[in-house]
Amino acid sequence: MGGDYAPGVVIEGLTLALEAYPEYDYVLVGHEEKIRFYLDKYGLADNPKISIVHAASVCEMSDPSTISLRQKKDSSITACARLLKSKQVDAMVTPGHTGATVAATKVILRSLPGVDRPALAACMPAQEGRFLLVDAGANPDCTPLNLLQFAIMGGIYAEYLLKIKSPKIGLLSVGGEDSKGSELTKETFKRMGELPINFAGNVEADSVFEGAANVLVSDGFAGNVLLKGAEGLAKSTIHWLKLVLSKNAIRLIGASLAKNAFRELKAFGSADEIGGAPLLGVNGIVIIGHGSSNPKAVLNAIRVAGDCVKFGLNDMIVERIKAAGVEFGAESAG
Amino acid sequence: MGGDYAPGVVIEGLTLALEAYPEYDYVLVGHEEKIRFYLDKYGLADNPKISIVHAASVCEMSDPSTISLRQKKDSSITACARLLKSKQVDAMVTPGHTGATVAATKVILRSLPGVDRPALAACMPAQEGRFLLVDAGANPDCTPLNLLQFAIMGGIYAEYLLKIKSPKIGLLSVGGEDSKGSELTKETFKRMGELPINFAGNVEADSVFEGAANVLVSDGFAGNVLLKGAEGLAKSTIHWLKLVLSKNAIRLIGASLAKNAFRELKAFGSADEIGGAPLLGVNGIVIIGHGSSNPKAVLNAIRVAGDCVKFGLNDMIVERIKAAGVEFGAESAG
Repeated sequence: MGGDYAPGVVIEGLTLALEAYPEYDYVLVGHEEKIRFYLDKYGLADNPKISIVHAASVCEMSDPSTISLRQKKDSSITACARLLKSKQVDAMVTPGHTGATVAATKVILRSLPGVDRPALAACMPAQEGRFLLVDAGANPDCTPLNLLQFAIMGGIYAEYLLKIKSPKIGLLSVGGEDSKGSELTKETFKRMGELPINFAGNVEADSVFEGAANVLVSDGFAGNVLLKGAEGLAKSTIHWLKLVLSKNAIRLIGASLAKNAFRELKAFGSADEIGGAPLLGVNGIVIIGHGSSNPKAVLNAIRVAGDCVKFGLNDMIVERIKAAGVEFGAESAG
Repeated sequence: MGGDYAPGVVIEGLTLALEAYPEYDYVLVGHEEKIRFYLDKYGLADNPKISIVHAASVCEMSDPSTISLRQKKDSSITACARLLKSKQVDAMVTPGHTGATVAATKVILRSLPGVDRPALAACMPAQEGRFLLVDAGANPDCTPLNLLQFAIMGGIYAEYLLKIKSPKIGLLSVGGEDSKGSELTKETFKRMGELPINFAGNVEADSVFEGAANVLVSDGFAGNVLLKGAEGLAKSTIHWLKLVLSKNAIRLIGASLAKNAFRELKAFGSADEIGGAPLLGVNGIVIIGHGSSNPKAVLNAIRVAGDCVKFGLNDMIVERIKAAGVEFGAESAG
């Protein structure tokens, strides 16, 4: 129900998913009447693959993150998380409110054994391919242990879901030198070198777009600044591009000849091609799409969710975090 | 001597400055022989406005930040800071090593009375005009007091140097809501509302490019991530633009018709138009240019330095920080 164009866009995405992944069963969680309206519209009213679980309220994009746990306990996000908790579904996908989803799933599903804090993993464009940013915003304040766990979880995701062999894992910092950074990154740097990962050292925010790392580890504050800053600058670049291209007739003709190029340029950074950010480390598969997701983005988010289940992502996370000796609780237990 | 094209580019910039600001005297600090070579080249060998102070070594861009204080105590940056300390010059301008300049000037010049930590202020492009980011990277770890001082210093700079009446001052955070953010921003938010400034509240990294604030206050870690991330994405966007425009002949013709538009697009984000980031709060006027500065950027940095001296920037900083009751030491003194 969440997101800018729900539930229509979700159900349009579902029509694509039914073709691409006919082996899955789909549970639509939200306002039953509204959902039925769109199922009718897309000729899916009697599809045996689809069932509905009613949820009365919706976390609007303007609501605070805690809404799903306080005023709107009957929201589609909380209902969805409860279905996942009781194992009635294997994964949940939402193009809705990121903060509300993180808050609800952390409380209802809890973290995986050994994981201190779940982290949002966002796929961002690099000059060649993409890189995975962990944490993109779930945890504004982090400890070195959190970051070590993000590195391991991100590494597994990059290896199995993004199919990158021995992914390079970098630590977002403010200087390439080992000795630079904040207290948090300096302490993390020391310990990250001892992990069984392909550690690429400190990485500055400019070099990630040139492919300095496949996985970029960060606290959720700086990570969110990088993600949102890139989104904002991309939007403004389109604004400036239109401005300079419309200054005279010759430029306008040039722009019109090259218009497909601009469409492709937009697609480079488009979240729709990726289709959703996994919340890594939560006890259940949770994929959060962009609020402005289109049907293709919904399809891609469903693909990612299915792959995470198939690869047994969460079992691998628990196993590797334990093997690396960075499970939560182990430190205090000596 | 620092920067990618020094000292040639500095002396070419100086030829522009001599015309624009004939009332200033210019002291060139660096390797005397090399400087003389370029002065000869540009016909400035006997110019009475120019003098030279020899410094044997140079902080290379690849050197660590502490180099100016340890191995290269005779560098042009340290020599320059000492001239400023002894009041033989009124301001220093360098297109050199940012980290080394920050380290050297902090130690040699120290902070202004009442200022805890000097901060780097970077001018960044917004859809309309620009915004000032403070701190862009001098202090990876900050306290709320640091951020309150950055807000006041940035506000003065925006008002007098950027000529913005009652500048909107925003706090970089990870959610628009007052209650969101890190421990640092939440504590800062509470106290920033009490300052005699036009506080615009929390600002997310995407909305700054749309002009949400004239001054964006941040710790130096997140600030540097925003600055470097924007630089890196801008570079990659040019890369992608070239890629999509060169895919077929029609697009190439279109691109060639619109080529001046692309030049203008590049200029939007160019540091050369701005000419240098002031290090606010240090006891002396210090303007740090980009390592890749061109002559125009050098001229602009000289203009900024001159304006800071004329407006009595540092006296105003000391005064207003005291008046706002956020001077360093006042808290512990009760």
